[in-house]
Amino acid sequence: MSKNVIVGQSGGPTSVINSSLAGVFAGAKASNAGTIFGMRNGIKGLLERRTVDMGQFVKNEVDLELLKRTPSSFLGSCRYKLPKLEEGEEVYAQIFKILEEMGIGYFFYIGGNDSMDTIMKLSKYGEAKNSPIRFMGVPKTIDNDLAVTDHSPGFGSAAKYIATTIKELILDAQVYNNNAVTVVEVMGRNTGWLAAASALAKGPDSMGPDLIYLPELDFSIESFLEKVARVSKSSAGHSPTVVVSEGLRLADGRYVNEIAAEKNTVDAFGHKQLSGTASYLSQEIHRNLGVRTRAIEFATIQRSAAHLQSLVDVTEAFAVGQAAVKAAMDGATNRVIIIKRLSSQPYAFATDAMEIEKMANIEKVVPAEWIAEGGTYVTKDYIDYALPLIQGEVAPYYVNGMPRHLVLPK
Amino acid sequence: MSKNVIVGQSGGPTSVINSSLAGVFAGAKASNAGTIFGMRNGIKGLLERRTVDMGQFVKNEVDLELLKRTPSSFLGSCRYKLPKLEEGEEVYAQIFKILEEMGIGYFFYIGGNDSMDTIMKLSKYGEAKNSPIRFMGVPKTIDNDLAVTDHSPGFGSAAKYIATTIKELILDAQVYNNNAVTVVEVMGRNTGWLAAASALAKGPDSMGPDLIYLPELDFSIESFLEKVARVSKSSAGHSPTVVVSEGLRLADGRYVNEIAAEKNTVDAFGHKQLSGTASYLSQEIHRNLGVRTRAIEFATIQRSAAHLQSLVDVTEAFAVGQAAVKAAMDGATNRVIIIKRLSSQPYAFATDAMEIEKMANIEKVVPAEWIAEGGTYVTKDYIDYALPLIQGEVAPYYVNGMPRHLVLPK
Repeated sequence: MSKNVIVGQSGGPTSVINSSLAGVFAGAKASNAGTIFGMRNGIKGLLERRTVDMGQFVKNEVDLELLKRTPSSFLGSCRYKLPKLEEGEEVYAQIFKILEEMGIGYFFYIGGNDSMDTIMKLSKYGEAKNSPIRFMGVPKTIDNDLAVTDHSPGFGSAAKYIATTIKELILDAQVYNNNAVTVVEVMGRNTGWLAAASALAKGPDSMGPDLIYLPELDFSIESFLEKVARVSKSSAGHSPTVVVSEGLRLADGRYVNEIAAEKNTVDAFGHKQLSGTASYLSQEIHRNLGVRTRAIEFATIQRSAAHLQSLVDVTEAFAVGQAAVKAAMDGATNRVIIIKRLSSQPYAFATDAMEIEKMANIEKVVPAEWIAEGGTYVTKDYIDYALPLIQGEVAPYYVNGMPRHLVLPK
Repeated sequence: MSKNVIVGQSGGPTSVINSSLAGVFAGAKASNAGTIFGMRNGIKGLLERRTVDMGQFVKNEVDLELLKRTPSSFLGSCRYKLPKLEEGEEVYAQIFKILEEMGIGYFFYIGGNDSMDTIMKLSKYGEAKNSPIRFMGVPKTIDNDLAVTDHSPGFGSAAKYIATTIKELILDAQVYNNNAVTVVEVMGRNTGWLAAASALAKGPDSMGPDLIYLPELDFSIESFLEKVARVSKSSAGHSPTVVVSEGLRLADGRYVNEIAAEKNTVDAFGHKQLSGTASYLSQEIHRNLGVRTRAIEFATIQRSAAHLQSLVDVTEAFAVGQAAVKAAMDGATNRVIIIKRLSSQPYAFATDAMEIEKMANIEKVVPAEWIAEGGTYVTKDYIDYALPLIQGEVAPYYVNGMPRHLVLPK
């Protein structure tokens, strides 16, 4: 009898994390695997034996397509990091006991850096115990900070959403002809891949953002205010748009939104008022330059906007899921599927199964040479890199005017 | 020789305000009008003789379709209110002088309440001076607060965006199984039409928001916290979503975000830290209930998200523009085009030219009987009203992965 498969999702969702789940499911199905199990809330749920038979929910091709078009993590997620082996061997023993009882031969984990760490640890434990179970990582992150892979599934759709929405906001900001400044905050705690994607808005019909601040460079409020003043005065009636990464830090290492919290004295209840990076910086601009400002945060919308998926991203997210199954069935373990760019124009990619040590716990930042002189924009190299990843659209399945999703009952 | 036409846009943009502009243009073109002028930045720009020949920018049917798909106000906007006649007759005289010099026979103004006030005042002045110029209002507002018309162009697309994005956010919020509370702030200073649209997210694949707070009812923080606590504990692992209108007010008339500003003591520079309604309420929830919270503001994204237009809304926005031209050419003046609902199932509408006094300076609120008992949801009547307005989609014209827009050079 064929061995069973188990798949989980971990970390923050992306709008295509379920496309990878669909890829694993379709790949396993095509390989005549046994039952395809899903773990609810990742490894944390597995430890509590909270699993589902995916086949009960993905019954046909329409379900599979709906799954691809469903944002968030179909199986739920967790932020659980496995203990070191020497500090928690009983956790490992428990996981393998459950997997063996379930007849699992192949284990897939869709996630970012922490998830790759999990796969690495489980693989090593399995190897030491001579377990036949194959462990494979499937990459996802909107942040695009995973090493080795050319880019990560999830990034393209988030980039498309950010660029599209910023293009719309730039137009919106121009209506009153009043030199107001819009500050938009984009996700990316330590890397500026997403903030940089706002540059894709620039084209024959859009001036794009005026300034883009990435967390790869030290941030200086003085220099920021000076540059904002300059773009604000650059042309009468032009209302500049400034994109800032949530992870901006001063040279001393403090996050900009930490300063915001420090400067806010406590309220009547003794609590500090929290404030985001964009909100704080827009107040600084108003205070120092006297112009009208507006702060906009994309918050979690940018990772869950499945109504604006990139076709290239959905295709690749599905492909890495399928490739993980193929590699595991071919005997690979302790590996992660990466995307290799074969060509940018025309865009072509291939997948490969890479030793997971090369990815786990490493953070890929925007290369210094892709950040424009002055540190407030990106170069053509970044555009050439990112543009192929936002090509094409996957329209939702609309029912009665609303996107329909595939949802796992509680 | 045919008389010329002039059209302007005023007030806040919507994602279909340019569809109405396209409707006026197409209607005037079909009626063999003379030159079709656009005023930049509304009546304010007209006074400065900043006008454009629309035909130079809308050269063919593709341009016209691009215009429909372009967010923000193509011609720019203003927030200029005409003085009372007795306080500023010279302004009126100046406007009519410019219009006569330009050979204008028909004047169209696309906007909300203030714009209708402008049309009313200009019509009356023209009538008193025996001017042959016809003045027509074309309604737009995402807020849906215009009287007499069944609904306003702009509302359907904003409602579709809000419902879709909240549906995605609700799914996103469930991934960690941790009872965190998401508070989403939606536009609507005095009316809750848009906040209520979040209820459209509810369906077989979504529980919809847990609570919806409209500005039509007095807001009580104590009652709010009590209800949030209840939904937060209603089921283990359920992460509630609470939708609040930006215009929530206490019984004493103070806006909730004013209290936020009052409670925030001043910072090191002596300035108050500003805070939105959602941000303040999410902090109150965290402080009082001890649960994790997240505040999300749709800000101006909800009025400029042209990438998610409702087909019904685009169609109607175009139709009211065309109807305004037809009515004006038939001799009407001092009127506004309204939408009459002929049937909800199947949905059918017609336009009519209504005396503008019936609309100007009146605010239409959500009827009390459409607000559910307890004041934290809407009834089926609201759903039956709003659902037809979000039907169908108009996809952007994508070029190289990005929506293309029609933009007027500065």
